[in-house]
Amino acid sequence: MGEFELIQRCFAQAGRQRPDVTVGIGDDGAVLQVREGCDLVVTTDSMIEGTHFFPDVDPRALGHKLVAVNVSDLAAMGAEPCWLSLGLTLPHVDETWLTAFAEGLSETADYYNCQLIGGDTTKGPLSLTMIAKGQVPKGKALTRAGAKVGDYLYVTGTLGDAALGLKLVQNQVEVSKKHRAHLLQRFHYPTARVALGQALRTIASSAMDVSDGLAGDIHHILRRSGVGASIDVSRIPMSQALKDSCSPEQALQLALSGGEDYELLFTVPEIRRSSLDVLLSPYGVPVTCIGRITGVAGKLELKQGESLLQYQHKGFEHF
Amino acid sequence: MGEFELIQRCFAQAGRQRPDVTVGIGDDGAVLQVREGCDLVVTTDSMIEGTHFFPDVDPRALGHKLVAVNVSDLAAMGAEPCWLSLGLTLPHVDETWLTAFAEGLSETADYYNCQLIGGDTTKGPLSLTMIAKGQVPKGKALTRAGAKVGDYLYVTGTLGDAALGLKLVQNQVEVSKKHRAHLLQRFHYPTARVALGQALRTIASSAMDVSDGLAGDIHHILRRSGVGASIDVSRIPMSQALKDSCSPEQALQLALSGGEDYELLFTVPEIRRSSLDVLLSPYGVPVTCIGRITGVAGKLELKQGESLLQYQHKGFEHF
Repeated sequence: MGEFELIQRCFAQAGRQRPDVTVGIGDDGAVLQVREGCDLVVTTDSMIEGTHFFPDVDPRALGHKLVAVNVSDLAAMGAEPCWLSLGLTLPHVDETWLTAFAEGLSETADYYNCQLIGGDTTKGPLSLTMIAKGQVPKGKALTRAGAKVGDYLYVTGTLGDAALGLKLVQNQVEVSKKHRAHLLQRFHYPTARVALGQALRTIASSAMDVSDGLAGDIHHILRRSGVGASIDVSRIPMSQALKDSCSPEQALQLALSGGEDYELLFTVPEIRRSSLDVLLSPYGVPVTCIGRITGVAGKLELKQGESLLQYQHKGFEHF
Repeated sequence: MGEFELIQRCFAQAGRQRPDVTVGIGDDGAVLQVREGCDLVVTTDSMIEGTHFFPDVDPRALGHKLVAVNVSDLAAMGAEPCWLSLGLTLPHVDETWLTAFAEGLSETADYYNCQLIGGDTTKGPLSLTMIAKGQVPKGKALTRAGAKVGDYLYVTGTLGDAALGLKLVQNQVEVSKKHRAHLLQRFHYPTARVALGQALRTIASSAMDVSDGLAGDIHHILRRSGVGASIDVSRIPMSQALKDSCSPEQALQLALSGGEDYELLFTVPEIRRSSLDVLLSPYGVPVTCIGRITGVAGKLELKQGESLLQYQHKGFEHF
């Protein structure tokens, strides 16, 4: 079997085989049926060796993560994930690596009801670009632009775990055996909050996913909505694993500035706050109120209880 | 201005600003309005430095070509191009290079009525992945799968020019001054046959674009349609520039196996052949009948007039 056939075979049936795919892999393009009354939502995320992952990463985990981080963007917009395209650049064809990568990708695509519908494989330094497409009832997509003064600020799950998981991978920290698996899982196998994102369509005024750290990412909402925010850092949800493994200062730093948690950050108007618990409880994902939206455009105020916190956010910068 | 802002500024308004883009660049994803009664068509093409282009390529031409080759796939499916996403990996930010690349991309996107609606910029070895999205009336997309025995085989424009243009760029050949500009234009600035592709929706039984050479690409139609083909190579359309610059054997080799012409290859049932000239004449693109579809599945027969031609196709192989 030639290398071209190997690549084809690995990806030919990846993910959930959906009835709305008229033409999938193997033509000039894919033909897809968007439901009537729905808008199309499209998002792109690239992962580059040396920038986003280490050369020795488990290829199965890499396939998973590529899908999850793209689907997470769709989740943040309240969209239903449907179709994935893959731009794959490989230095050479390693059957074991490619098979494991494709299996990880396929399993996770299947989990999120997504079908791989096309892509392009080229030779070059290892890099992965995924394009995820989903659909959302017309006009109902959640964006970063709808937050209003007085809205309450919420986050799903816990923050900081993935950043500590990265430090574990890099051998920069030691943690107890009972927490190790959880933290590595959170780093390698993030979960996109898909069902919760769709439930937020009738509740949230704005939403986004937290990929580069809360203290940096929130500015996207502040900029697009023309507002400010005040966060009580003592209310930021942290896992027992994080709290047990770090000093309180380190834990807070990871929760505020560590990336790759892929939790949702969203704002809720006061009038809809009462329905939040009832509407979101079926999803089994904790949501925590961490602050409010203020009128001071662009300003993020961090408090610890009643006292103001001086904090310098250092996010990831590519260039 | 920081590098992140520079990248944002370069691409913020790239291409035609379309009214069906509800949310464009700057959110977790884009929100797009697909017309009712239309299917979505999606295609992906990557261009990698060292594989698809030379480090010293004019960035403006690169921006053009990235858009054109992606739009060409949509054209081959009879789709109307609408929206583009860009996965851009850069080793560093060079303002002059990036500005020129973005201008080339934007001008060509505008020409094809496409808006850049999102993407991801990362640090790494230079590579470009574009995802083009278009729409086509439900069930009307042209594919590679519809060719039937007896159908006539057509190609648009002329073949082999881009391959000779590549040889010029590589200083492998010399041509007369009057042909030089034409051949370089065909290599650097290919034209996607968008209007013609849409006109073919009611005429062609199958279609694809020729990106890797006629003698190789046609096998995609043969495989997907379960048919064979017979081509009279003396009927393959060649430009005066190609014929004047090469021996007949070299010209034929470039026309059969040279890539990057981005012309359309399509099949037409006999019953619809009579309407071809009338329906396609407004588009100003010559179409030439070069052969017929046969019943010998997978077999490509090349004839020169009445005699059989022995020909070994060597296409581009990545791995």
